[in-house]
Parts: sequence; C-alpha cells; structure tokens
Amino acid sequence: MSNEELDKLRQDLDEVNQELLTLINKRAQLVQDIGGIKQQQGMNRFDPVRERDMLDSITQNNDGPFENSTIQHIFKEIFKAGLELQEDDHRKALLV
Amino acid sequence: MSNEELDKLRQDLDEVNQELLTLINKRAQLVQDIGGIKQQQGMNRFDPVRERDMLDSITQNNDGPFENSTIQHIFKEIFKAGLELQEDDHRKALLV
Repeated sequence: MSNEELDKLRQDLDEVNQELLTLINKRAQLVQDIGGIKQQQGMNRFDPVRERDMLDSITQNNDGPFENSTIQHIFKEIFKAGLELQEDDHRKALLV
Repeated sequence: MSNEELDKLRQDLDEVNQELLTLINKRAQLVQDIGGIKQQQGMNRFDPVRERDMLDSITQNNDGPFENSTIQHIFKEIFKAGLELQEDDHRKALLV
C-alpha cells in the first residue's frame, strides 16, 4: 500500500469526524428539546430505564469492529454530556 | 407540548443513536485500515500531532449546542477506543 492510500483513508476519516460532529450536536439538540418538555411536565430529566433501553437497542445492532463494551462506554459519555447540557439549561432557566 | 411530541423526539433520538453507531464503527474500520498500512511501513500507530490537528479541525466546525470542551472530550474517547483497537490487531498479528 502507498502513501496515497494512507492520505485517502485520512481524508475519509476527516469526513467521518465532521459527520460525527454534526450528529453528536443534532443529538444534543434533541436532548435539549426533550429536557424542555420534561421540565414543563415536572418530569425527572434523568431516566435510567430509558438510558438502559437505548444502550440495549444500540448494542443489539452493533456489527463491530468495536466491541459492545466499547460502544457502551462511548455512548455513556455522550449520554452524560447530554444530561449535563440539560442541567445547564435548567440552571439558566432558574436564573431568569 | 404533548406526550406525542415527546414520543416523536424520542424516536428521532433513537434514529440518531443508530446513525451514530454506524458512523463510530465506520470510523473504527478506517482506523484499522490506517493502522494496517502504518504497521506495514513500520510507522508508529499513535500520532499526537495528527490527533491534535483532527481535534482542532473538529472544534473549528463546532456550532453547538455542545461546548468545544465537551466535543473534545467525546472525540478523545473515540480516538482512544480506535487506538486500543489497533493495538488489539497488532497483538493478534504477533500471535499468528
């Protein structure tokens, strides 16, 4: 394999990085919208059962190469960041 | 807002989760391919300069709602998992 192939793969990787960025922020926006509705309805923002269901559904569709444990670890970090964003929104709402 | 709207947002979230799963594994496959070429060429698999460049490029295109620090944290976890996958491949190659 040549350096041209390496450069091409790196370009592909950069594109996937940008697509991931877009999707991660799209997810964050959805989580904010859901948090807003839950707040209006006086529901708890953190729902461990729903989180477990999402993780199960994700790993059921995992064809690799990442192991399920790795996929779960990455998604837990994404979930945690989403929850922190909801908490920030809630704090800002309280300050208004 | 109604529960129907909440259900709709949750469906959207589930779809984004599956798209993220697909992209994260697509990225892992690319990282494996790149690792294979680097190994053939006797190059070091971990390249901190390239990693920093990728993080800079990602955060430059970040329009939120996640902060740059959060995006960097999530991507570092994805990078780390990719590196671990390359190391596993290398260990398996040595055992053959």
